[in-house]
Amino acid sequence: MTPLPGSAGDVLTLISAGSATTRSDLAKLTGLARSTISQRVDALIERGLVEETESGESTGGRPPRQLRLHTEEHAFAGVDLGATHCRVALMDISGEVLAECEDGLLIGEGPETVLAHVDQRLDHLLDRVGRPRSALRAIGIGVPGPVEFATGRPNNPPIMPGWNDYPVPEYFDGVEVLVDNDVNVMALGEHRNAFPGASHLLFVKVGTGIGCGIIAEGTLHRGAQGSAGDIGHIRVSGHDDAGCRCGNSACLEAVAGGAAIARRLSELGLSAESGGDVVALVQAGDTQALRLVREAGRLIGEVLAGLVNFFNPEVIVIGGALSRVHEHLLAGIRETVYRRSLPLATHHLSITPSRTGINAAALGAGILAIEHYLSPDNINRIVNA
Amino acid sequence: MTPLPGSAGDVLTLISAGSATTRSDLAKLTGLARSTISQRVDALIERGLVEETESGESTGGRPPRQLRLHTEEHAFAGVDLGATHCRVALMDISGEVLAECEDGLLIGEGPETVLAHVDQRLDHLLDRVGRPRSALRAIGIGVPGPVEFATGRPNNPPIMPGWNDYPVPEYFDGVEVLVDNDVNVMALGEHRNAFPGASHLLFVKVGTGIGCGIIAEGTLHRGAQGSAGDIGHIRVSGHDDAGCRCGNSACLEAVAGGAAIARRLSELGLSAESGGDVVALVQAGDTQALRLVREAGRLIGEVLAGLVNFFNPEVIVIGGALSRVHEHLLAGIRETVYRRSLPLATHHLSITPSRTGINAAALGAGILAIEHYLSPDNINRIVNA
Repeated sequence: MTPLPGSAGDVLTLISAGSATTRSDLAKLTGLARSTISQRVDALIERGLVEETESGESTGGRPPRQLRLHTEEHAFAGVDLGATHCRVALMDISGEVLAECEDGLLIGEGPETVLAHVDQRLDHLLDRVGRPRSALRAIGIGVPGPVEFATGRPNNPPIMPGWNDYPVPEYFDGVEVLVDNDVNVMALGEHRNAFPGASHLLFVKVGTGIGCGIIAEGTLHRGAQGSAGDIGHIRVSGHDDAGCRCGNSACLEAVAGGAAIARRLSELGLSAESGGDVVALVQAGDTQALRLVREAGRLIGEVLAGLVNFFNPEVIVIGGALSRVHEHLLAGIRETVYRRSLPLATHHLSITPSRTGINAAALGAGILAIEHYLSPDNINRIVNA
Repeated sequence: MTPLPGSAGDVLTLISAGSATTRSDLAKLTGLARSTISQRVDALIERGLVEETESGESTGGRPPRQLRLHTEEHAFAGVDLGATHCRVALMDISGEVLAECEDGLLIGEGPETVLAHVDQRLDHLLDRVGRPRSALRAIGIGVPGPVEFATGRPNNPPIMPGWNDYPVPEYFDGVEVLVDNDVNVMALGEHRNAFPGASHLLFVKVGTGIGCGIIAEGTLHRGAQGSAGDIGHIRVSGHDDAGCRCGNSACLEAVAGGAAIARRLSELGLSAESGGDVVALVQAGDTQALRLVREAGRLIGEVLAGLVNFFNPEVIVIGGALSRVHEHLLAGIRETVYRRSLPLATHHLSITPSRTGINAAALGAGILAIEHYLSPDNINRIVNA
């Protein structure tokens, strides 16, 4: 990867990070010729990406013009598709949420139905904030299953019938679409909103299944095939009799996921079919449910203890449906991680419930779209088009 | 981290990567003013980092001068300190090995004795290639224990008595010293020499203990406290009776490390005290040793199966003393990883013995030193000094 220092994309990065607020800042920081700076800035203004105001601080003479992101011109969308819901956030280029909505929606209705719903919600939200459809530059979508990130196609997603290999980005005309696994966008949303200073963060989603989003050096780690973070099928000890839908046994998800806990509760004669039922029983003070959630925390903690030794994160965030009873889950997780991980790796480790909560996925999907749009390569492509 | 595009460091990166071979290449790639390019290039030539030749291809007129790294001026050293050996490689700025040597040396003699030996070997090697001591710009050192990378101080290393918190870099005058865990520099050496195109690589060292070096997006992943890759203390199932020196039980290292295998062999009445003895027994065709090495491979594979799901590497390299009998170790590792990891993550995964072999640590330590020296920030500091 060869750097191309001094491109329009680099100039925009300096402006959006707040490192340069005037043309002379840019000249000082980059060493570019004044004429080149003017060319770059003018192109960015012409594309509606940057605005230049007169409101600079007076230094005796003419006040210097201030450069900043032009937040009026563009719009971005973050879409969180769950098994049974659809949440859409409309954002400006700075990441500010302009409007949002949530509806019940079954992912199993298939891509055409679900994406038509999303499309209609986008129109609705754009209308609400008074921006034309043409202002929409990029859409990020989080889905509850594995995705080939480069093409935006779901890859054999177990709970998304009809979606396998469906070219999601092609559904939307004239706008870039990025599709990713829900736990990846949750990790991104949580990191950018709640822990922007953490270099290494794990976001663990404990719902029906169990998955993990990985932030390394501030960016999403997807791995060689984009399947990184699939911790639900890591083996836990002492449960070789627990079969898993993946064909193996003793998988973490098969013993500690919301569906597994619900099944064990129903075997005990309680009425529980889903992670939501487990949460309700815990909130009602049922001691069997409490015990099983804490035991699930210990098993999740056993897997995380190994990952703490291996990856050495500074923050582990626990999210997903079961994190609504996070005190019991966290107690089990913390107990095991602090017992089994190396002291050097846990000394400054924080294990915490999600702060972004149910908004993490929609926000993260929107941030994915904005960061892609603002990447120097993409900006250079736009400016040189 | 704010980019400073167009600095002398960026210009040197373009030259050393081979992306720019002339001043006009640099002008085209960076958009810098010609006068700025001249200033940057002249400063790099003055510091002996770049040379400019007349040997360019003729284009009818005057042949353009060619820019390239000046490989005569500087020297770098890679030092591999093991429990019982010291290997030193002297390299030029392009990573070419100029000379190397290896001696027996006990790390337990303590830092003063060991570093005096290294110092003397450096003089000897510099002398051999006819470069003055003042040409030595940076030294990379790999040690068999945890290190606080930022300060170069070993951090409670179990097999390095006298080294805890010792300020290794301060021992050497007038030269930058980078100290890292041996398995980290092995991962770097293996990646740069044998798998430069792999974005995500794990280097697993199976010796007396077991450790892992992690390459993510082509760079070393050290984690939040620099302890990443410490996989020797991850729990394996079914071995809760095996106590570990860390105070826990069922740690991978306590059941599958060279020392653990040797102990089990001596319990069976065989003469084995170390990983080296285990290797000798396997090479002599002892079936008990064969069986235990393959079983160790299965246990290592159990841990790696989880890490493959989590990290999704494209290459896992097996190195360390026991990799000398890698066919038996690899059979066990592969068997378990392919059985326990998700098909998406193993489909393109390659599990392979180290190609760089016993040179991986010294080469990797030298590369660590060179890459640090050539980093844009360091070059800018040198040029602006």
